[in-house]
Amino acid sequence: MLKVNQNYLKLPGQYLFSEIAKKVETYKAEHPDQSIIRLGIGDVTRPLTPTIIKALHKAVDEMADVETFKGYAPDLGYAFLREKIAKNDFQDRGCDIQPDEIFVSDGAKTDSSCIQEIFSTDAIIAVCDPVYPVYVDSNVMAGRTDAFNPETKMWDRVIYMPCRESNGFSPEIPKETPDLIYLCFPNNPTGEAITKEDLQKWVDYANRVQAVIIYDAAYEAYISEKTLPHSIYECDGAETCAIELRSFSKNAGFTGVRLAYTVIPKALECDGVKIHSLWARRHGTKYNGAPYIIQKAGEACYSQSGKAEIKSQIDYYMKNAKIIYTGLQEMGYSVYGGSNAPYIWVKTPNNRSSWEFFDDLLGQAGVVGTPGSGFGPSGEGYLRLTAFNTYEKTLQALEAIKNM
Amino acid sequence: MLKVNQNYLKLPGQYLFSEIAKKVETYKAEHPDQSIIRLGIGDVTRPLTPTIIKALHKAVDEMADVETFKGYAPDLGYAFLREKIAKNDFQDRGCDIQPDEIFVSDGAKTDSSCIQEIFSTDAIIAVCDPVYPVYVDSNVMAGRTDAFNPETKMWDRVIYMPCRESNGFSPEIPKETPDLIYLCFPNNPTGEAITKEDLQKWVDYANRVQAVIIYDAAYEAYISEKTLPHSIYECDGAETCAIELRSFSKNAGFTGVRLAYTVIPKALECDGVKIHSLWARRHGTKYNGAPYIIQKAGEACYSQSGKAEIKSQIDYYMKNAKIIYTGLQEMGYSVYGGSNAPYIWVKTPNNRSSWEFFDDLLGQAGVVGTPGSGFGPSGEGYLRLTAFNTYEKTLQALEAIKNM
Repeated sequence: MLKVNQNYLKLPGQYLFSEIAKKVETYKAEHPDQSIIRLGIGDVTRPLTPTIIKALHKAVDEMADVETFKGYAPDLGYAFLREKIAKNDFQDRGCDIQPDEIFVSDGAKTDSSCIQEIFSTDAIIAVCDPVYPVYVDSNVMAGRTDAFNPETKMWDRVIYMPCRESNGFSPEIPKETPDLIYLCFPNNPTGEAITKEDLQKWVDYANRVQAVIIYDAAYEAYISEKTLPHSIYECDGAETCAIELRSFSKNAGFTGVRLAYTVIPKALECDGVKIHSLWARRHGTKYNGAPYIIQKAGEACYSQSGKAEIKSQIDYYMKNAKIIYTGLQEMGYSVYGGSNAPYIWVKTPNNRSSWEFFDDLLGQAGVVGTPGSGFGPSGEGYLRLTAFNTYEKTLQALEAIKNM
Repeated sequence: MLKVNQNYLKLPGQYLFSEIAKKVETYKAEHPDQSIIRLGIGDVTRPLTPTIIKALHKAVDEMADVETFKGYAPDLGYAFLREKIAKNDFQDRGCDIQPDEIFVSDGAKTDSSCIQEIFSTDAIIAVCDPVYPVYVDSNVMAGRTDAFNPETKMWDRVIYMPCRESNGFSPEIPKETPDLIYLCFPNNPTGEAITKEDLQKWVDYANRVQAVIIYDAAYEAYISEKTLPHSIYECDGAETCAIELRSFSKNAGFTGVRLAYTVIPKALECDGVKIHSLWARRHGTKYNGAPYIIQKAGEACYSQSGKAEIKSQIDYYMKNAKIIYTGLQEMGYSVYGGSNAPYIWVKTPNNRSSWEFFDDLLGQAGVVGTPGSGFGPSGEGYLRLTAFNTYEKTLQALEAIKNM
């Protein structure tokens, strides 16, 4: 008799964003005239830019002609895109990453959840706390964790690295030694970045204990401070201990277009096995390449006009981030993030819990945030706001919060 | 110290199609003037049809406008597509499948390789022999198999169900009881279909032993005989034992567009757990939805003009299949498939091995096929040809084989 993967049954039933959606629906039903402004989910709202649209139309036309039609894409991505990525995102920053070390995919969520598959199920993972839930959940599914402790709200057999005001939201080297270390900078949800010096410490540590860092740099395009690292490969020795995840979702607005990539240097080995070969094999067996027309859209992001348009889109969102950050600060809130990331991490006032403050904002201002506790126990007492709504609605939200 | 997933190391290094590519390259280098006709890999060659192109352009334009821009898609697919699928592919054939039992994805390769994740790693799998390599390889990666036996060319702890001339290429109920049964009809690589009566036997068997059937129907659009089942849900009781995989690759020519779906009836349970919920959770954690513009292209396949254009494209390929089938038959070859599938399964002449016949075809006719032994030990002594090249090249290939 077939049995299911018992690890799935350990996962708590309610997913954070479903719970939020349910609360918002209930509120709307009870207050049909109240307008709601969503500063919760990290989805973009600006349309694709003209250069990207033009590239998409052109690629669609190619698919209509027998001479230029494209069937199966190369498993690991088209060379035209991998070359642009290697040059623009890495070589131009002094990182020695080659096109054949880039794996093009349909999303950083897919990559960040599936990358664990190529490692032993015995591996001990370490995550920042608070953290993007996908890292932990995908490891729960794979059986790498023990039970969920409903009191501590932590999974047994997972190393949590608290990121709080007291340590500047920067994780500290843990006492126990992890095998796989998930780092995300600029960080979701805290919006805080990491300095090159601090990141170098992690690279040195991982090389020393022979751990691998999964470095999620999905928000690197939002970095405004010139000295901050955009890639972990800016650190010495990262090529022997780090995998980097990148996404077109938050810079080019591809959340509904679906394009991302993973970097695995050929120098990265575990136990004498090249991690690059394992991920290539995983791609070849469990994936069939990103759509040609989407990869052409990705290529367009690296043209001169594409780059300029994307920069202006990021400026748009970062203007929102500044409005939220300074607005809340002027009202007396303690706020973090927002300078190098599209997320603002707000400390709840008067020791309210994350969910209580969520209810306050929704009930008294019609503004939807994301309770920090949903990202892990150290997120309790915080709430995440995002800069992805329109300028007008962001202003309205701030006004409404002011009048609470 | 981090260790890799040791199961990956069990996989033989050389992938079938890489080995073929290498042989073809060597041949081309040695015979630069000889033209090569590829009837090997199952990739389509006809461009996307006008209705699909129109839908793609329209969807691209929607992404350019702030009012119609789409961010993250619903995890399980847009309702507009899932409703069309449920109605056209199932309800119109008398199968009671609802839109919320459809999971839209980026490919049947992804689905067929990842579906095993939601089941116990103890599960015993059964596969047809010969078989699409992805079913077995994905289970090897998950640790469901023991060692590969280089003599029998079989994996230990896998039930192989031989499909040969002697049983009409139809698998028989195995002596050992499997937990997960992979069936693909019309079949890749043999090109043979299954009757409704034979499929019903499998459904009854799976329900009796509480196994689950993964039914890969990626080639159903090629069925020409009216009495053959297009979906396993045409069989009584399939909703409690079967998952069906479908693809837009081979009907609408989406191999480079990437769209597919999986059907999991809500009535399908293992051990009291709804499989539907597990796959929904897997989608929600390890996937982020197919691109909006691609889902709109999928929707266009169900319009009146879309359906007519797709039918004419399938007719085009099936005309090629007939040319290959009857041409080889007239030359005295034993040939199978080709009536309800775009694949022709050729018995090698004079007891040549699959690879010897592959070399004969390449060396003496410049035609590339796929050695049957690459699909499993019972594929030895056969070679697969596909109908996906152009009409003109298919004719040329037959002429060249005639002159061998």
